Amino acid sequence: MQKADLIIQNGLIVTVNDQMEIIENGAIAIAGNKIAAIDSTENILKTFETEKMIDATSKIVIPGLINAHSHLPMTYFRGLADDLPLMKWLQEYIWPAEARFLNPEFVYHAALHGAAEMIKGGTTCFNDMYFFSYNIAEAAAEAGLRGIVGEVVMNALPGNKQKENEIFDYVSTSRKSFKRNDLIDFTIAPHAIYTCDKEILLKSLEFARENDMLLHIHVAETEQEVIDSLRNFGKRPVEYLKEIGFLEHKTIFAHGIWINDAELAIIKNKNVSIVVCTESHMKLASGFAPMKQYFENEITVCLGTDGVSSNNNLDMFSEMDFTAKLHKAYNNDPTLLPAEKVLKMATINAARALGKEDQIGSLEAGKLADIITIKTAELANLPMYNVYSHLVYTINSNSVNDVIINGEVVMQSRELVNLNEAELQERARKYAAKIRAK
Amino acid sequence: MQKADLIIQNGLIVTVNDQMEIIENGAIAIAGNKIAAIDSTENILKTFETEKMIDATSKIVIPGLINAHSHLPMTYFRGLADDLPLMKWLQEYIWPAEARFLNPEFVYHAALHGAAEMIKGGTTCFNDMYFFSYNIAEAAAEAGLRGIVGEVVMNALPGNKQKENEIFDYVSTSRKSFKRNDLIDFTIAPHAIYTCDKEILLKSLEFARENDMLLHIHVAETEQEVIDSLRNFGKRPVEYLKEIGFLEHKTIFAHGIWINDAELAIIKNKNVSIVVCTESHMKLASGFAPMKQYFENEITVCLGTDGVSSNNNLDMFSEMDFTAKLHKAYNNDPTLLPAEKVLKMATINAARALGKEDQIGSLEAGKLADIITIKTAELANLPMYNVYSHLVYTINSNSVNDVIINGEVVMQSRELVNLNEAELQERARKYAAKIRAK
Repeated sequence: MQKADLIIQNGLIVTVNDQMEIIENGAIAIAGNKIAAIDSTENILKTFETEKMIDATSKIVIPGLINAHSHLPMTYFRGLADDLPLMKWLQEYIWPAEARFLNPEFVYHAALHGAAEMIKGGTTCFNDMYFFSYNIAEAAAEAGLRGIVGEVVMNALPGNKQKENEIFDYVSTSRKSFKRNDLIDFTIAPHAIYTCDKEILLKSLEFARENDMLLHIHVAETEQEVIDSLRNFGKRPVEYLKEIGFLEHKTIFAHGIWINDAELAIIKNKNVSIVVCTESHMKLASGFAPMKQYFENEITVCLGTDGVSSNNNLDMFSEMDFTAKLHKAYNNDPTLLPAEKVLKMATINAARALGKEDQIGSLEAGKLADIITIKTAELANLPMYNVYSHLVYTINSNSVNDVIINGEVVMQSRELVNLNEAELQERARKYAAKIRAK
Repeated sequence: MQKADLIIQNGLIVTVNDQMEIIENGAIAIAGNKIAAIDSTENILKTFETEKMIDATSKIVIPGLINAHSHLPMTYFRGLADDLPLMKWLQEYIWPAEARFLNPEFVYHAALHGAAEMIKGGTTCFNDMYFFSYNIAEAAAEAGLRGIVGEVVMNALPGNKQKENEIFDYVSTSRKSFKRNDLIDFTIAPHAIYTCDKEILLKSLEFARENDMLLHIHVAETEQEVIDSLRNFGKRPVEYLKEIGFLEHKTIFAHGIWINDAELAIIKNKNVSIVVCTESHMKLASGFAPMKQYFENEITVCLGTDGVSSNNNLDMFSEMDFTAKLHKAYNNDPTLLPAEKVLKMATINAARALGKEDQIGSLEAGKLADIITIKTAELANLPMYNVYSHLVYTINSNSVNDVIINGEVVMQSRELVNLNEAELQERARKYAAKIRAK
């Protein structure tokens, strides 16, 4: 018998592997931080022995969901202002709140709350963009959540005090501190073409290349961004980024809404992936991402929640549901984005976008053990005929039962293992009182 | 001291009354099936004494949500077929399933499951349209759920065996059986203009008038319906209904998507309300309801989930979230449908559509006690700045804690009072096995 550190047994396993295999009454043997084997429960129990077992009877077992665009510390700004025009929302509510609370302590606590919320909703990995990424990494590591944390770079906003070299040094130092932590990666995240000049965009590119890091940037989120880009650079955003030579490294575009055919062709030929944040796009009336065209062009497209202040949650199940339904409605085609495809967006496509498709995004022997179980034994989850339809259209994030990240159980039967939920709640209330008191 | 049968205390009360009053640390005294008083907890406890108390500390207390268009027995068809063109979905999956399972026993069990699911999600009243409404009423009454059950009338489908007089007799008899039950009302529900001829539409109208009943009909759900109406009647659906004299009684239009300005004007001048089913409209790619125009014309518009097979749940919190976000996106206006307005759609507007605005839809002394409490002490629900934003964009139906309908506690701390959830789950699994085995 082989030794396993943990076995998940008796589950309906949705692998999201290349063959989209589903194993009824299946089991997963985990050794260290990796999946050692996946098979029928019978076969796994013939081969592996373990002292730790999770029973997944009447549960669906899937790869942990990947939130590919977040601003985790904005979790404390949930519902601070809504139903407003974008610029009024930013200028009168979000930026002033950020100006008052942007410090390492706030960022750490708000990110810890967000990390806990992500785990409770079945997210096992997030790709973030914010200030004080060191403290976001600290929070993710403490929660046991896999985090790819991007430090924001910007220089074109009036009054911005960031000093360029300090940012890059900050990221280098932060990265070194987390070198031995399997859960944490860093990226460099130039905010957008309207907040970064050409020079700092190219410095970011150079830094990313030298350090073999992802680039993460907001692109084509609003029509105004395109109008301004045409006025300022004589080109649309993606054309401009290509022209200045920015698109020569693995890059994630957050949003990618206002993209025309010429820009699609550029994206297709560069190492660029798209993160669509459907709920944020709808709530802020940013526009409709060209989802159909992304798939037709075989561009890697995945999902993110964006910041909680524009969503207002970190719920990837809800994000899948909104995405599947919105693009059917928008394209007048109920067959577009079938559930299976949408589940891939939230798992294996996101892993690919992050350059981690060999490590996460599907349940396969040799991959890291980022796994969630989902209860079906609830009234709202019965009956079940098709597991993909269930995962996208029916399952509510509160049905997530267990969460395993990097081989560690971080939530068991909805109880967080590494964090004290009551303390997190109390701290959120205290910060909210400060934020309210202007 | 006055006697109350139940007091809900220490809650954040969102009344949805004309002044949209919110009472912090508020209490509601309930006597019999009615709200006796609403005030601060301090004042209520000075005036009322009770043996039964619900503590709503850190909870939001709102009027129960009203699902204004459902097909409750389709709950057992959840996810039976998805991501298909409408006619293929209907002809190859839904109609064959219905043909096999349309009997009183199936309808009763599936409706009981749906009624339980509605209660768990904070719905206290539903307006249904299906066959065997007597058995749906039975299920609702057993669950303790307020139900307005409409018997479907149709005669234009080939092979339909319904006999007209039998339907009307069936509704009359059913209604008599439930005469003493406060929870149950009946309506007559001609299916649509493409499944009912003029004669039966007018018979339905006459029957509704004689019996002082609501009319409930599908109108303008698809573009094809308009095309067919123009071809068959030389008029668009609403114009046709006006012309034949159908719109002379209080009527609910389910869907109301493909409505032009002339039809808006007709609706405005008749006693007609609209139920929009946003998630169903999106998933089936039916189109975008003219929500902005409905509000501009002061037409009563409310929300429904439609059948579970096209949604795929009975979750009114999700329906509010989708509705608020979709119409912002579609109209390119983030200020459209602010959260407060959307909450009204799911409560007082629905009560008005059902002709029950004096009885339900808001928390006011003298109204029926249909009340739900919602936990905020959850990671995903903290922090909270604006309670309306929270209810629409943040709250997940699993945060509903207690449900009171007609003064009776039907769910307490997420435990159903009148029903055995484990039995319902087991029965759903058994029926699903039969439905799967073709």
